[in-house]
Amino acid sequence: MGPGPITVDPRVLRAMSTQLVGQYDPAMTALMTEVMALYREVFRTANEQTFLVDGTSRAGIEAALVSLLEPGDRVLVPVFGRFGLLLTEIAERCGAEVHTVEVPWGEVFTPEQVEEAVASVRPTVVAVVQGDTSTTMCQPLADLGEVCRRHDALLYCDATASLGGNPFETDAWGVDVVTAGLQKCLAGPSGSAPVTLSPRAVDVVQGRRHVEAGLRTDGDEGRGRRIASNYFDLAMVMDYWGPRRLNHHTEATTMLYGAHECARILLEEGLDEAHARHARHGRAVLAGVQALGLAVFGDVAHKMTNVVAVWVPDGVDGEAVRASMLTDFGIEIGTSFGPLAGRVWRIGTMGYNARTDAVLTTLAALEQVLRRAGTSPRPGAGVDAALEVYG
Amino acid sequence: MGPGPITVDPRVLRAMSTQLVGQYDPAMTALMTEVMALYREVFRTANEQTFLVDGTSRAGIEAALVSLLEPGDRVLVPVFGRFGLLLTEIAERCGAEVHTVEVPWGEVFTPEQVEEAVASVRPTVVAVVQGDTSTTMCQPLADLGEVCRRHDALLYCDATASLGGNPFETDAWGVDVVTAGLQKCLAGPSGSAPVTLSPRAVDVVQGRRHVEAGLRTDGDEGRGRRIASNYFDLAMVMDYWGPRRLNHHTEATTMLYGAHECARILLEEGLDEAHARHARHGRAVLAGVQALGLAVFGDVAHKMTNVVAVWVPDGVDGEAVRASMLTDFGIEIGTSFGPLAGRVWRIGTMGYNARTDAVLTTLAALEQVLRRAGTSPRPGAGVDAALEVYG
Repeated sequence: MGPGPITVDPRVLRAMSTQLVGQYDPAMTALMTEVMALYREVFRTANEQTFLVDGTSRAGIEAALVSLLEPGDRVLVPVFGRFGLLLTEIAERCGAEVHTVEVPWGEVFTPEQVEEAVASVRPTVVAVVQGDTSTTMCQPLADLGEVCRRHDALLYCDATASLGGNPFETDAWGVDVVTAGLQKCLAGPSGSAPVTLSPRAVDVVQGRRHVEAGLRTDGDEGRGRRIASNYFDLAMVMDYWGPRRLNHHTEATTMLYGAHECARILLEEGLDEAHARHARHGRAVLAGVQALGLAVFGDVAHKMTNVVAVWVPDGVDGEAVRASMLTDFGIEIGTSFGPLAGRVWRIGTMGYNARTDAVLTTLAALEQVLRRAGTSPRPGAGVDAALEVYG
Repeated sequence: MGPGPITVDPRVLRAMSTQLVGQYDPAMTALMTEVMALYREVFRTANEQTFLVDGTSRAGIEAALVSLLEPGDRVLVPVFGRFGLLLTEIAERCGAEVHTVEVPWGEVFTPEQVEEAVASVRPTVVAVVQGDTSTTMCQPLADLGEVCRRHDALLYCDATASLGGNPFETDAWGVDVVTAGLQKCLAGPSGSAPVTLSPRAVDVVQGRRHVEAGLRTDGDEGRGRRIASNYFDLAMVMDYWGPRRLNHHTEATTMLYGAHECARILLEEGLDEAHARHARHGRAVLAGVQALGLAVFGDVAHKMTNVVAVWVPDGVDGEAVRASMLTDFGIEIGTSFGPLAGRVWRIGTMGYNARTDAVLTTLAALEQVLRRAGTSPRPGAGVDAALEVYG
C-alpha cells in the first residue's frame, strides 16, 4: 500500500509466465502492434507512435528528453516535487539549458504561472510531471498544451504515477509526448515504459534520424544532430516498432506480455471507471487517516486520487511505524524524499491495491500500530470513516 | 532455435510469476544482494560491483560505455561483426574518439593484432564483443586484459551472446567491465543486463559521481564531469544496489526474479558443465547441417559453441525456408545482418534450447524443408550425424 511499486494484478503475473516467441515471429510482431493500439486508448490519443521503451519509467523519461532535446536547447521545468527535479537532472545531462519555476512542495501551478515562465524563457520543450508522488500533488494539465502551442514549445509530460488512476487526455490537452510506467495504477511491475509521441514531436525526432552502423543501407544517411543515446534513440525505436521492423534492442518479451495485460485489464474496466475507482478508494483512505487523527500533507484539492501523504505525528518514530506495518501486518507504506524524508507517510491505493479490502485492512492495521506508538486514535475510527465513504 | 532470444527455461517463467514486494522491503534488498553474489559466480569474479541494469543487453552496453567514457576519450573497438559496429555506435554517441581495427566477418583477432592497435591508438578503453552473433565468431580474450593493462587501458567486453555457453573468466583474463543479457545461454527473457566492474573501473566511474537533485544531501557535491545519462549512470546505480540503497530507478522486480533464477539454474548445473553441454549440442548441430549438405560460414575453429551460421544454398529462397520451418514445424531459425542478411541461416543451441530433442527435431525438420526447397539431402543424414556426436 505504498506509493508504488505495488502488488501486481495476478492476471498480469500469469500473462508474464507465457513462453517467449522469436522477435520477428508474426505472433510477436502482431502482439507489438496490438500493444500500440491498446496504449493509444490508455493515453487517449490517435498518435501512431505509441509503444514501449524497454526499461523502467525513468528510462521512458530519458528516452523522451534525449530524443527531443539537442545540446543548448532551452527547457522549462515547472518543479513541484522530486520528480520535477528529476526532469531537470535528465534534461541537464542532455546538454539542455534548463530553466525552472517552482512552487513549494505540496502545491501545484496555475496555468498563468506556467505561461508567464514560458513567455519569459521561450523554451523548445516544457517538461512537467502530472502526478509527483513525492508530494502526492497532481498538476492540472488541461490548459498547458494550448500555452505551449501559442509559444511554439513542445509539451512533455511524465504520467508515471498518475496514468490509469487520474484522467489523462493526451490529444484533448495537446500533450506532445507522454511517458509512463506499469508499477502504479496500471497494476504491473516496473520495467516497461509506455510512451506516445504526437506527429509534431515525431517530426523533431525524425529530424535527427541516423540508422546505426551494421544495419545502414544506401539512402539511410542520417540527418540532423545524432541523438546522444543509442538505446534511447526514439527514431530507431520507432523503426523497430514500425513496419520496417529494423532491429534495435531485443524486445523484452516478458515485459511486453505484462504491458499488454495491464492495458487490457484497464480498458476492460474502462478508463473512466478506473479513475472513479481510484478516486473512491483514495477518498476512503483520506477519510480514514484523518479520522485516525493524522494531518494530511499538501493541497488536498490537488492531490492525486491514488496516494495520500500524512505528517508523522510529533513524538512518533515514523520509520518504526513503517517497520511494524510491514513486519507485523505485511503491509508496506512509504515515506518520501528530500525535505519530506522520514517526515511523512505515503499510503497508496493504486492499480490492484485500489480495493476495499486492501483499504480497510490497512486502516485497521494502522490504528493498531499508531496506538502502540503512543497516539490515541478512537477505536474503529479509520475503518468507520472509510466505510462511510463507501456508503 | 534461432540466435536468441530463445525459449525460456520454464523455471524462469515460474519465478517471474512471483508476486512483487516493495523496493525497500528487506526481502527485496536481500534478493538484490543475492543476485549480486550469484552473478559474481556467473562472471567468475570477485568484483563487489556486480549487479543488473534494468534494460536489454544493449542497455548494459550503453551503461558501461557512457559511465566509463568522457567526450574526447579515445576508444579502440576491434570489429568482427555487427555487434562490434554497435560498440562503435554507442561509443561515438558518448562523444568518444572511436578508432577501429577490423577483420573480415567470419574471423577473429590475434592478440598481436589487438596489441598493435592499442599501442598505436593509446585508448582509454578497449571495447570488444566476445561472441558476435552476427558472424557466430568467438573472440579469444585470455590475453587482452594483460595487453590493456600494459598500455593503461580499461578492457570492456560485451558477453551477451556467449556468457554461460562459452568460458568467460572476468578476473583471470583481467576484463574490467563485462555486460550481458539473459536471452541467450542464460535461458531467460531479454530485459535485464547483468554487469560487473573491476575496482579500477569503479574508480573511473566514481570519479564522476553526482547524486541527483532531490536526493542530494550536504557532502554529496559531485566530482568530475557528470555522466551524460541519468538512467545509465552506474555511480548512481551502484548507490542503489549498495548499502546506501539510494533511490534511483524503481527496480524491475519481475526481471530481477528472472535474472535470479537464470543464475541459479546455471550455477546448479555448473559453469563448466554448461559450457560442455553447449559445446556438445553445438557440435551436433554443426555435424548435422554439414551432413545435410550445407556449407558453414566463417572460421569454425573460432565459432561460439552455441550458434552456427550456414550459407543458404544457391537457388534456395532462404526466407521461404525460414518461414516454412516456423509455420510448418514451429521452429525458428535466424538469418543475419548487413552483408549476411538473407544469405545465411543461423541456428542456435542456447540455454534451454541446448537439448538433444531440440537439436534432433530441428535437423529432422530442416531435412524435410530443404528437400521441398529442391535440394537433395540424404534421408536421415542430419539426425544420424548428430546422434554420432552424442555417441
